Amino acid sequence: MKDEFSFISSITPKQIHQPSLNVGIGDDAAIYSGSTQYDEVVCVDTMVEGVHFTKNTLSPYQIGKKALAVNLSDLAAMGAIPHYFLVSIAISPQWTEEELEAVYKGMNDLANKYQTDLIGGDTVSTKEGLVITVTVIGRVEARRRLLRSNAQIGDTVFLTGYVGGSAAGLALLLEYGRKADFSKEEEKLTLAHQEPQPQIEAGRILAQSNFRLSLNDVSDGVASEANEIAEASQVKLTIDPDKLPYHPFLNNGLVSKKLDFALYGGEDFQLIGTVASEHFEALKKKCSESDILLTSIGEVNEGEGSVYLKRADEQIKLLKKGYNHFSK
Amino acid sequence: MKDEFSFISSITPKQIHQPSLNVGIGDDAAIYSGSTQYDEVVCVDTMVEGVHFTKNTLSPYQIGKKALAVNLSDLAAMGAIPHYFLVSIAISPQWTEEELEAVYKGMNDLANKYQTDLIGGDTVSTKEGLVITVTVIGRVEARRRLLRSNAQIGDTVFLTGYVGGSAAGLALLLEYGRKADFSKEEEKLTLAHQEPQPQIEAGRILAQSNFRLSLNDVSDGVASEANEIAEASQVKLTIDPDKLPYHPFLNNGLVSKKLDFALYGGEDFQLIGTVASEHFEALKKKCSESDILLTSIGEVNEGEGSVYLKRADEQIKLLKKGYNHFSK
Repeated sequence: MKDEFSFISSITPKQIHQPSLNVGIGDDAAIYSGSTQYDEVVCVDTMVEGVHFTKNTLSPYQIGKKALAVNLSDLAAMGAIPHYFLVSIAISPQWTEEELEAVYKGMNDLANKYQTDLIGGDTVSTKEGLVITVTVIGRVEARRRLLRSNAQIGDTVFLTGYVGGSAAGLALLLEYGRKADFSKEEEKLTLAHQEPQPQIEAGRILAQSNFRLSLNDVSDGVASEANEIAEASQVKLTIDPDKLPYHPFLNNGLVSKKLDFALYGGEDFQLIGTVASEHFEALKKKCSESDILLTSIGEVNEGEGSVYLKRADEQIKLLKKGYNHFSK
Repeated sequence: MKDEFSFISSITPKQIHQPSLNVGIGDDAAIYSGSTQYDEVVCVDTMVEGVHFTKNTLSPYQIGKKALAVNLSDLAAMGAIPHYFLVSIAISPQWTEEELEAVYKGMNDLANKYQTDLIGGDTVSTKEGLVITVTVIGRVEARRRLLRSNAQIGDTVFLTGYVGGSAAGLALLLEYGRKADFSKEEEKLTLAHQEPQPQIEAGRILAQSNFRLSLNDVSDGVASEANEIAEASQVKLTIDPDKLPYHPFLNNGLVSKKLDFALYGGEDFQLIGTVASEHFEALKKKCSESDILLTSIGEVNEGEGSVYLKRADEQIKLLKKGYNHFSK
């Protein structure tokens, strides 16, 4: 430690590596920092008891896991790798110490999968319920921005994985409660809602493809997210309902609702995007090498920022109608 | 945009600039990233209606301002410069659109002072009250860590600014409400509670001094924060109550309580720390050049992680007894 008294300089806010020229709100996550090699990406999301979950739909363990998953999904949509996260929990006396520990365990189990470190947080008391806010910091190769505004006419619209499962699972949970005696198939659906998998690996493959890509994560349903891409890119997205990759266990009584679940259900945390049609097959092949399903569900046409569902003899305009959870 | 298909590499979490060797939980803020020139610092804090504030103690504008100030104070205690912040608000139907706008205006006004940019956030609904979580990201010169564990025997214990004002102001607000007809002097105290000034400039001067420093911000009262330094450094801090820099308007009926306000009141958001005694005067002089008061309030002795108040003929052990806000 130096012993003489030497102030390096006077106070200038941001004197250390002024990075703000490179800041941009990238869709759900913000991009900052200006290394030549990477951009830093940060996002924050909050889950509220009684709005995003109840004790009857998610276990404490699943609440923690999902609170982190929501944020990781935002990072996935940027093609970023998660590095760190911070957690802030407002907790009421109705919650026990054991339940709080389970919330943290759920987060940590998912974090470990991506070697993402918990580096800070805050726990405060509240009078009722539980509010959990997670901040995730990650990185993506510099200038590799998979923005919603990147769609162009002629692109193929794609989806990763399956959709509709989370909404179907939530419908089951709301009707029977999470401790009900579900069949194996129903359990797959409830788990799709309770423990959704953020598509970090898929995001990385897409980011590293070097293709021009628009991208968004399916947190509010395919209709809503497709509309965000259409609006940001000022194009028309046409989706073929017969091509939608429905969750394989959307059977029996759930079949009639599967289009609604996929379009408006949300929280599948898959990725929806667009890529030039001539590159779609190569992208699909690369994904399949990592066991990731990539499905073409439509195309990008000239238009004014809207989404249409293509039927045999008609086109139906899809409004956002994002999923409203438990609120009225 | 490159057109050929080339995946740069396969998926390896943290493949871009693996920074985690350099992560450390620095007290209330976490240090991460591994540039040779700077460390990144991040912290998160939550304020809950009915616990940390009520509509009778803070205006919506002040709620926003204080929610950011709490975080900036954590950064100040690391000597860091704030760069970016993210906000997550859970808001109930009892709050109007205008009130929510005022919350954001309060944050933005304080953020502008430090050229700190809002780069993201989330607004969700809740059934009751308001919960606001702020995440702040900043930077400090590499390896310049003003940790609580840096205190050594022989150090002088110091405080920036005045203490006790916030607790006295809160007492007035709880008794009369924020719309009461306060005297000019009482108003200074209520403002000390409602619009505390994070000590970013003081933190920067301390960080740039190159002295070995322990440092903490006074969010839970001098007793609690001094105990944290004593415990982290495994030393004894002896504080002289006659040297405490009491808020200048702690007059009249408040005089008898001023020691309690200073020790246990909290939320003054001043900085408390220790520095080798021979360097204190130089540090004090440097602070005074920026109109920052730095007061010696005691000394560091050999001991087992505890804090004592020095009276004429006795020493009283100070327990943490952090301030409990409105909760029971």
